[in-house]
Amino acid sequence: MLSTMQDAPLSITRILEQGSGPHGASAQVITWTGEGSRRRSYADVGRRAAQLAHALRGLGVTGDQRVGTFMWNNAEHLEAYLAVPAMGAVLHTLNIRLFPEQLVYVANHAEDEVVLVDATLVPLFSTMLPELRTVRHVVVVGGDAAALEAPQGIEVHGYEELLAGQPTEFPWPELDERSAAAMCYTSGTTANPKGVVYSHRSIYLHSMQVCMTDGMALSQADRALAIVPMFHAMSWGLPYAALMVGASIIMPDRFLQPEPLVRMIADERPTMAAAVPTIWQGVLKHLADDPHDVSSLREVVVGGAACPPSLMKTFEQQYGIPVVHAWGMTETSPLGSVARPPAGVTGERVWEYRASQGRLPAGVQARLVGDGGQVLPWDGQSVGELEVRGPWVTASYYGDADPEKFHDGWLRTGDVGHISPDGFLRLTDRAKDVIKSGGEWISSVELENKVMDHPAVAEAMVIGVPDEKWSERPLVAVVLRDGEQVDPAELRDFLAGSVAKWQLPEYWTFIPEAPKTSVGKFDKKRLRQQHADGELDVTRLG
Amino acid sequence: MLSTMQDAPLSITRILEQGSGPHGASAQVITWTGEGSRRRSYADVGRRAAQLAHALRGLGVTGDQRVGTFMWNNAEHLEAYLAVPAMGAVLHTLNIRLFPEQLVYVANHAEDEVVLVDATLVPLFSTMLPELRTVRHVVVVGGDAAALEAPQGIEVHGYEELLAGQPTEFPWPELDERSAAAMCYTSGTTANPKGVVYSHRSIYLHSMQVCMTDGMALSQADRALAIVPMFHAMSWGLPYAALMVGASIIMPDRFLQPEPLVRMIADERPTMAAAVPTIWQGVLKHLADDPHDVSSLREVVVGGAACPPSLMKTFEQQYGIPVVHAWGMTETSPLGSVARPPAGVTGERVWEYRASQGRLPAGVQARLVGDGGQVLPWDGQSVGELEVRGPWVTASYYGDADPEKFHDGWLRTGDVGHISPDGFLRLTDRAKDVIKSGGEWISSVELENKVMDHPAVAEAMVIGVPDEKWSERPLVAVVLRDGEQVDPAELRDFLAGSVAKWQLPEYWTFIPEAPKTSVGKFDKKRLRQQHADGELDVTRLG
Repeated sequence: MLSTMQDAPLSITRILEQGSGPHGASAQVITWTGEGSRRRSYADVGRRAAQLAHALRGLGVTGDQRVGTFMWNNAEHLEAYLAVPAMGAVLHTLNIRLFPEQLVYVANHAEDEVVLVDATLVPLFSTMLPELRTVRHVVVVGGDAAALEAPQGIEVHGYEELLAGQPTEFPWPELDERSAAAMCYTSGTTANPKGVVYSHRSIYLHSMQVCMTDGMALSQADRALAIVPMFHAMSWGLPYAALMVGASIIMPDRFLQPEPLVRMIADERPTMAAAVPTIWQGVLKHLADDPHDVSSLREVVVGGAACPPSLMKTFEQQYGIPVVHAWGMTETSPLGSVARPPAGVTGERVWEYRASQGRLPAGVQARLVGDGGQVLPWDGQSVGELEVRGPWVTASYYGDADPEKFHDGWLRTGDVGHISPDGFLRLTDRAKDVIKSGGEWISSVELENKVMDHPAVAEAMVIGVPDEKWSERPLVAVVLRDGEQVDPAELRDFLAGSVAKWQLPEYWTFIPEAPKTSVGKFDKKRLRQQHADGELDVTRLG
Repeated sequence: MLSTMQDAPLSITRILEQGSGPHGASAQVITWTGEGSRRRSYADVGRRAAQLAHALRGLGVTGDQRVGTFMWNNAEHLEAYLAVPAMGAVLHTLNIRLFPEQLVYVANHAEDEVVLVDATLVPLFSTMLPELRTVRHVVVVGGDAAALEAPQGIEVHGYEELLAGQPTEFPWPELDERSAAAMCYTSGTTANPKGVVYSHRSIYLHSMQVCMTDGMALSQADRALAIVPMFHAMSWGLPYAALMVGASIIMPDRFLQPEPLVRMIADERPTMAAAVPTIWQGVLKHLADDPHDVSSLREVVVGGAACPPSLMKTFEQQYGIPVVHAWGMTETSPLGSVARPPAGVTGERVWEYRASQGRLPAGVQARLVGDGGQVLPWDGQSVGELEVRGPWVTASYYGDADPEKFHDGWLRTGDVGHISPDGFLRLTDRAKDVIKSGGEWISSVELENKVMDHPAVAEAMVIGVPDEKWSERPLVAVVLRDGEQVDPAELRDFLAGSVAKWQLPEYWTFIPEAPKTSVGKFDKKRLRQQHADGELDVTRLG
């Protein structure tokens, strides 16, 4: 039996119309300039998005060509977010923090034909431009287009010059909601970046989730400070969600240091903000030395990495601002789970929930899979790899099979943890870092944290190393604090109080510093290589 | 270019799994029994929904057969809400307040094969049963099945007996999100009721909208009191939304009088509640005489008819509970608009927004169409018929063409009003009641309200009557207060202060009482008939 309901597509066009129409006069995009802010109403954003669409048509973007952006969070980036998908083309947000060879790879792999580049990023972009095989037009935003010397065959345009004189309305086409709207590559450390192609449908549904009270609760009353970059998992969905409900959005442009962020908060009075833990750590530290009024924030959302509970407690106790932990990944649009404690939970028990990765909403189905492929119960104890599926979860990578990541309709997240009966996810490790010892799993992250509790230890990294009897056993690489001295046996005794006996590491080594990735995470791949190459001086305890 | 996102269907099955899984232990359906409450965890609801699905399979519901419900709001009705659509069949909520001949029409038109009937409604249902041509099974809920004497060929079952011993898990099928999930007939006063068939997709999207902060803001922390019947526009979407996010739901069963409602609120401490204005009027009146603690309510939602601002103000000023006005219809699932004032609006101006029908969200596109078919601007003044479209708006009626209601992909709502530039809808009349005078529209409702402001007037009804010069002119039918006397000229002078000169009615009549429909609204159709039959004694002012 057929339903009688309309077949109305879920589309970014509706988000654009809603934001720039009824919310056009009241809501604004506010871009920090270093000294202060420039403001643009959503009505103007809508008109300029129409002009941009006309301009892009003029540059030959007539179908689903990819339009790249190499930009900070600012008003013009928001215009591209709206115009490109709504005209039927595909927005490709280039992550400026990738290594240059990765950036060249992704722009060529996505076949970007036009790239919008912030003037301040032109020097960085210029070095790669000669290697971009499909780019025909570069549009320089917020600066002098003449400053960019382009190779033969590539035209350079100024953004404002391109928009000037274009009509401020555009006949937005009716689009299939499953068509491509935007793409974003993950910054994999072990292989080439992988592309995720969001659809109009997935972005629309994800925007609704962001605005749900148990999501980020975004509403027309909000002023959202989008610190998380628009080139990183679509700024966690804030730009589209803000347009959908008419929340104003505050964009820090390139001013991501604690000092300007704090000033921006005091001046522009955001009601919510989203960023990774390191940003908030810097903000807190700065606030301690240089107090500002941050009381406008009803809450801040933190994700992208596990957030230390101490950071959450400081924020709440000193400034009265709840820090809401969330989990997600590029492959999940990204909102996967949000850590709001269940109603009725009080006192210290609240922190068990708030420190977790959060509860998975109806839109994100999850299961835990153990070593042998068996599906594990949600008992808060059984540890397995998290797999997810749902309407805003990717089913594959763009032009890249990667059968390792997908099976039976599920995405393997590469995260390992457990889920409580009430649906709260607690991640304990990355799948590739977990140590598989005699059929049991040992979390490298938990061991690292316990070792780092020792006063002589500055940093500790744990990797699995081959072991004849147990298949794998943990190796601990310790960086001592300056002037401290301690031996492995003492460290193991220190662990014995809080770690199960069978998990106690026998392999230890001391290293002068911990190898790290470009984003400051422990580079365990390199440590494994050093171990394989025999570069580490390993002690084996009896 | 294809998106890489999963093609995961939006379905009631996901809502059922989310509610009965992670929220299964914490959230409950609470059903009022007259004396107190009975409680059932969502986990139990999920198990019993599986049992019901097995039982219905046993009764031959193997495909998209219609399963009717003739029930109050209670736990068993919720089980049917979940089991019937999730198993792939279609839930048909029979409106017990329709006239018996209308009920017979809709059950036959929908071809209901099984009907679940509350034991307390068996006497009412029995009178119609002999005329139901497609019903093969009747399931009596919460009472003695033997009390129902069924005609030859119809089997009668007890609900609990049917569920007993069935497996508590069901292999829910994967469903096309556009397939039929539930149907509801409108209670049209002018013709046969019309069926709206909701899809899994429309119900899922509508549930997200209910949980959006600018919607009804439903969250896991809520205890929602669903006063609006589950047979009336799906109880405004509360049951599905509650399961989606794990809010508890409180069901009044048949106890819809002010006294039990107030006791229920004091005992069960709902955080929000939804009902039509007359319910809240009764509650307020009862509270004045018999105070109870209603402070648990964070807000109440009112819709289904325009809510007098005085009611909203009393609720807020005496009890500190905001009343949120909402607009919708069976054809719109029903959530069409919600009247939350924009951020920054303060003082008396708040009431301009709160008394409106509210703001249309991204999911409900709207336009105003004038007499000649022209689309009118959103300027807060141009009055036209409201037309809407969107993913939870119906495109047609089930098995009933009605080309009058649908054109160019839009639903004609039959409501007349204007929309402000910031997207707030203000309805002034029903399209069929508006008076079309010399190309201009006169709101019958506004005239009625102005006439009723006169101290001698108890009630006033306004209809359009044929006029040679102006095509139509207003006729006012006045019911005087006991013992009062006033002549038409005086009433017209009274209006002259607040009504434009060209709108001042020249046709007046006095009637002993106002004809009303079964739900207590002015029956203008009957008044028009009386006028056409020459039954009214009309005065024409010069």
